[in-house]
Amino acid sequence: MGPHPAVAAIRLAVRRVLHDVLSDILTEEPHSTAGAFGTTTAGRTPERPPSPLVLVACSGGADSMALASALAFEAPRLGVRAGGVTVDHGLQNGSDLRAEEVVLRLRELGLDPVEATAVTVGRAGGPEAAARDARYAALDAAAARHGAAAVLLGHTRDDQAETVLLGLARGSGIRSLSGMAAVSGAGGRYRRPFLQVDRQTARKACMVQSLPVWDDPHNADPAYTRSRLRHEGLPALEKALGKGVVEALARTAQLSRDDADALDTWARQAEAGVRDATGVLECAKLYALPPAVRRRILRRAALEAGAPGGALFARHIEEVDRLITGWRGQGAINLPGKVVARRQGGRLVIRQG
Amino acid sequence: MGPHPAVAAIRLAVRRVLHDVLSDILTEEPHSTAGAFGTTTAGRTPERPPSPLVLVACSGGADSMALASALAFEAPRLGVRAGGVTVDHGLQNGSDLRAEEVVLRLRELGLDPVEATAVTVGRAGGPEAAARDARYAALDAAAARHGAAAVLLGHTRDDQAETVLLGLARGSGIRSLSGMAAVSGAGGRYRRPFLQVDRQTARKACMVQSLPVWDDPHNADPAYTRSRLRHEGLPALEKALGKGVVEALARTAQLSRDDADALDTWARQAEAGVRDATGVLECAKLYALPPAVRRRILRRAALEAGAPGGALFARHIEEVDRLITGWRGQGAINLPGKVVARRQGGRLVIRQG
Repeated sequence: MGPHPAVAAIRLAVRRVLHDVLSDILTEEPHSTAGAFGTTTAGRTPERPPSPLVLVACSGGADSMALASALAFEAPRLGVRAGGVTVDHGLQNGSDLRAEEVVLRLRELGLDPVEATAVTVGRAGGPEAAARDARYAALDAAAARHGAAAVLLGHTRDDQAETVLLGLARGSGIRSLSGMAAVSGAGGRYRRPFLQVDRQTARKACMVQSLPVWDDPHNADPAYTRSRLRHEGLPALEKALGKGVVEALARTAQLSRDDADALDTWARQAEAGVRDATGVLECAKLYALPPAVRRRILRRAALEAGAPGGALFARHIEEVDRLITGWRGQGAINLPGKVVARRQGGRLVIRQG
Repeated sequence: MGPHPAVAAIRLAVRRVLHDVLSDILTEEPHSTAGAFGTTTAGRTPERPPSPLVLVACSGGADSMALASALAFEAPRLGVRAGGVTVDHGLQNGSDLRAEEVVLRLRELGLDPVEATAVTVGRAGGPEAAARDARYAALDAAAARHGAAAVLLGHTRDDQAETVLLGLARGSGIRSLSGMAAVSGAGGRYRRPFLQVDRQTARKACMVQSLPVWDDPHNADPAYTRSRLRHEGLPALEKALGKGVVEALARTAQLSRDDADALDTWARQAEAGVRDATGVLECAKLYALPPAVRRRILRRAALEAGAPGGALFARHIEEVDRLITGWRGQGAINLPGKVVARRQGGRLVIRQG
């Protein structure tokens, strides 16, 4: 008798990602495998390098505990070492004790090395963004310290759906609808095997494997946008639109990502052709481009001039675009970061000050 | 003292669209102005043609009554004749009496011609789609009968937001996120002046102008997906994400539409380059394209081969795409409409049967 379907599903998802990680290591240039194999190529002998190490980032919650269990099962079968990291955000009393408990559970699964790493969460960008920044910095450091080839993250299809809705609320276009990438970070370090696995499956897999899980009270705290979305917004949307909403949102993420990538490529390629000999943008040539491509070029130009990405909204770019498409002698447009866009003759000048 | 801000807002929205309609008429080739001016150019004398006619489609609800009032106010100032049509869907007892009442109200606003037109709603595509199909057929016929240059529709920003969410639930990519177009139909007949105006403003404008409005009970009937979305889904989403959600969704519609248009253009242009001398798709050349462009070409090829658009989902195209990107000798892929996609040598053959 095989494993429970939920356990089979999470293992398959992890197995696929481990195959990808191994295949990426094999196709890498020899001089860049140092980190991946936890060794340097300088003075390397023809011996077999040590097995690559894959870490799981684990909060002790159902998603990442399921991920840890699947990694513990699959890694040895593929000649991969499996380790784990848990980040203590220090935001609740006793978070250090909980981190120690997670370390014990990961060891019980057979992971090695396993460590808890404590971080100090700042305030920049709001509580959720600050916690995320601190967490990724700690995971980056742990990956480097252990020479890990990859760090697995337990984000599920439900998390992806929530991320798409959060992006939708920004109204800033398809890039913000593209959710989390399956592969991200420097050198593709972070992998998200569960983006096609739903939260219920992860929870079920923990249950049938008798893995105790910890429910982060933050996840149910209505002070957090994501929590409100999870417990109120998304269920109401499912009630109105049907049960397929989560899957539809996750699919939208993938399609939007591919579309945004293609349009970014187009904009990069078109950009050279719309600048004059001195590098200034020419209005007539911009006008001839499709709006989607033109606005991406305008956004890139504003960013290059020093406008901060987080403060540069679609409505800013629309206003700059009207210097091209609705020219009636309007004045300079002020953008965030003291960047100014103005039309001078047939040229569009975007610069600071 | 000027008009109430809500009235000013709806009038401005209509004025802009009437300017667009007039400017489109002026820039049209003489031989194509026949419909717009309600006359033919054959034997046309140098006399001034009759004023163009713009119709408003009016259900008697707040959105379209506001639209009718703004059209009645703005049209004479721009030398445009304003008329109205109300469609009796025959779905409720007394709908014919209500249609007559709407006709009276439109006449009271000074519109002329005004007519009620009765339709028979079929069943194809579900109750909402069937009613919509019947309504547009009746509006098309009324526009042709009166030689109208344009038909104004009262869809608001809130309707647009709902349409984006309905598209999101399909999970079929950014085209389905692009909502309703400001200009649509044959020759750009249909115009939606209120896509940037919220429902509350339209309602307020009716109130301050003492226009009685009729609330369609269908709009509150939870049997309809859009009604559930309006009364439960969207409010819950606003509660979770903040009040800007409707605006963000409407902006997403516009950005997605432009992006989808640009990528469709790219796919059309790239298509010629990936076919061999006999017109068959070449896998190696398809492989070299960005996924977003390649999948659009595959979708077009499936449609051309006879697959019905409504039944052709993103997952079908993904499966065909794996014949290119994940080739390991898999068999033919069955698509809707008895269309089959198979890889033969280095070629991708998509055809019926």
